[in-house]
Amino acid sequence: MDELVPVWWDGDAIGYIDQRMLPRELLRKRAHAVDDVVEAIATLAVRGAPAIGIVGAYGVALARLLTADDDAFRAAAARIRAARPTAVNLAWAVDRVLAAPRGEELKEARAIHEEQRVVDRAIAGYGVPLMPENACVLTHCNTGRLATGGDGTALGVIIAAHRAGKKVHAYVDETRPLLQGARLTMTELAAAGVPATLIADGAAAATMRLKNVACVIVGADRIAKNGDTANKIGTYGAAVAAAYHNIPFYIAAPRSTIDFTLSSGAGIPIEERGADEICTFGGVASAPAQAAAFNPAFDVTPGELISGIITEYGVFRPPYSDELSALAEFPKVPT
Amino acid sequence: MDELVPVWWDGDAIGYIDQRMLPRELLRKRAHAVDDVVEAIATLAVRGAPAIGIVGAYGVALARLLTADDDAFRAAAARIRAARPTAVNLAWAVDRVLAAPRGEELKEARAIHEEQRVVDRAIAGYGVPLMPENACVLTHCNTGRLATGGDGTALGVIIAAHRAGKKVHAYVDETRPLLQGARLTMTELAAAGVPATLIADGAAAATMRLKNVACVIVGADRIAKNGDTANKIGTYGAAVAAAYHNIPFYIAAPRSTIDFTLSSGAGIPIEERGADEICTFGGVASAPAQAAAFNPAFDVTPGELISGIITEYGVFRPPYSDELSALAEFPKVPT
Repeated sequence: MDELVPVWWDGDAIGYIDQRMLPRELLRKRAHAVDDVVEAIATLAVRGAPAIGIVGAYGVALARLLTADDDAFRAAAARIRAARPTAVNLAWAVDRVLAAPRGEELKEARAIHEEQRVVDRAIAGYGVPLMPENACVLTHCNTGRLATGGDGTALGVIIAAHRAGKKVHAYVDETRPLLQGARLTMTELAAAGVPATLIADGAAAATMRLKNVACVIVGADRIAKNGDTANKIGTYGAAVAAAYHNIPFYIAAPRSTIDFTLSSGAGIPIEERGADEICTFGGVASAPAQAAAFNPAFDVTPGELISGIITEYGVFRPPYSDELSALAEFPKVPT
Repeated sequence: MDELVPVWWDGDAIGYIDQRMLPRELLRKRAHAVDDVVEAIATLAVRGAPAIGIVGAYGVALARLLTADDDAFRAAAARIRAARPTAVNLAWAVDRVLAAPRGEELKEARAIHEEQRVVDRAIAGYGVPLMPENACVLTHCNTGRLATGGDGTALGVIIAAHRAGKKVHAYVDETRPLLQGARLTMTELAAAGVPATLIADGAAAATMRLKNVACVIVGADRIAKNGDTANKIGTYGAAVAAAYHNIPFYIAAPRSTIDFTLSSGAGIPIEERGADEICTFGGVASAPAQAAAFNPAFDVTPGELISGIITEYGVFRPPYSDELSALAEFPKVPT
């Protein structure tokens, strides 16, 4: 599994896996310039809220290496910070590196990366007791090593439950349009030896009804203080279906995904991506020419549909506002 | 739109459009043998519950032309009847042609096809008053001319509402895994001049929340007497999401889709198709090798989630059992 580390510091550049090529090809690239970093984030070569935080942090460190001019440095950091709008981890990580003393940027970026490994282990520790035994777990998108740079959030919990002997079987939404579930989660589960079955996103409700699905667990890109959670498009429908079937629906995410400035999900900016992601596949048209498409990359699941939010500081239950707000003052990593 | 007639009698064979090639290519083929008919149905070259009923009916007529031997004829009809399990229209149409006097099979098949045109117009007549004005309608899969051989069921209602000046805008689920929404429904809506926007199936719930979606309308492959409805995989999740958003959810389908032998949806056989439909796209792997997939072609929406069933005999409302059962005794087409 070590080969699936999504991002690392590589001497004078940032190394990363171009995840768009998986599972067909394990393509490693190097980002030597700020433009490369912005492109890697914007094109989803690196994706997953914690992972884009880490590549953003390394990006600011790279920008500091490339320029002594403070204005140019801050402009570069702002460009990285704006490369994708929804996952708050990116802005949080860029701001943390910007706040580091001059010359300490790379050290701070490395600290963010190392903390994520600790955080993911803590999330797994709190998540495993919530996982069923001899039953199925449904997940959406990819929240494993490729998404966090550590052991993963939601997928990290599933894999840790497997290693703890819980005999879980994962049902994996393929996650259109970019198929992170099919391409990445199925790859990570196979590498970890977890029994897994791929389904079309539209089959999630039927799978909950027909199979022994005991819970749903997914990650997050931004969480408001009331628990409203932006995550990959399709999450909201899965949460509604879980509620209809009385199946617990969990979010697993680090504190860096919580936006302490937002009292509800209404303020979360939702990235809309191009129609081509829906209208073509592998360069082949799957819809008539000039077809219009609505392609939001994320949706917002209301906190009322979320049974628990699993963080490195423990599991939070609805109503969320007071307890999630208090997390802002907690130490960097759990002690 | 005439060019999108999915199936027709063509001298001594059955003409049909190979819908798997749409929208890239409008490929017409001829079925000369029973094997061709079975293959056209099983591979989804012809699909849509009423349309496979019609091609099945023509198939039995073709079998009669090809053999004077009654045992061989009945064996051929049985093979056609079993080509796909879920849509009851296929069995219904085959049985109707089998019950025709010897030598009258083609006449009966033509009658089934012609009746569908009348039925679709009647469904549109009952459906249009339920459609909103200046608002959005969400649909799933394809239920237009390509699916019925007439003007369509659910999509026929949407197009008729547009022609009646209701200013509807259609949101269309792409409908994984075979993309009937993207490939076929978007093509038919463009041809009819109806404003339409394609979405990933996973975006349906978010679209209901964010856009002005006033109702959901879909077709059906088999309806039990209590209103439980088998339809393309993804329908059930859309129905659950519509209920959560308090949006009416309608089924539009002919009486031939009702299975009067079933008291609930628990008895509907659900076709499971191959993993390759999920694990590859256009011949390209979209999941790791050896990935397992669960690929039910249909799901069952409980009658309790269905606001109304629009048939050629009128609109039925829950609870359905008594009124739907009575339809068994109605005349062949509304008078």
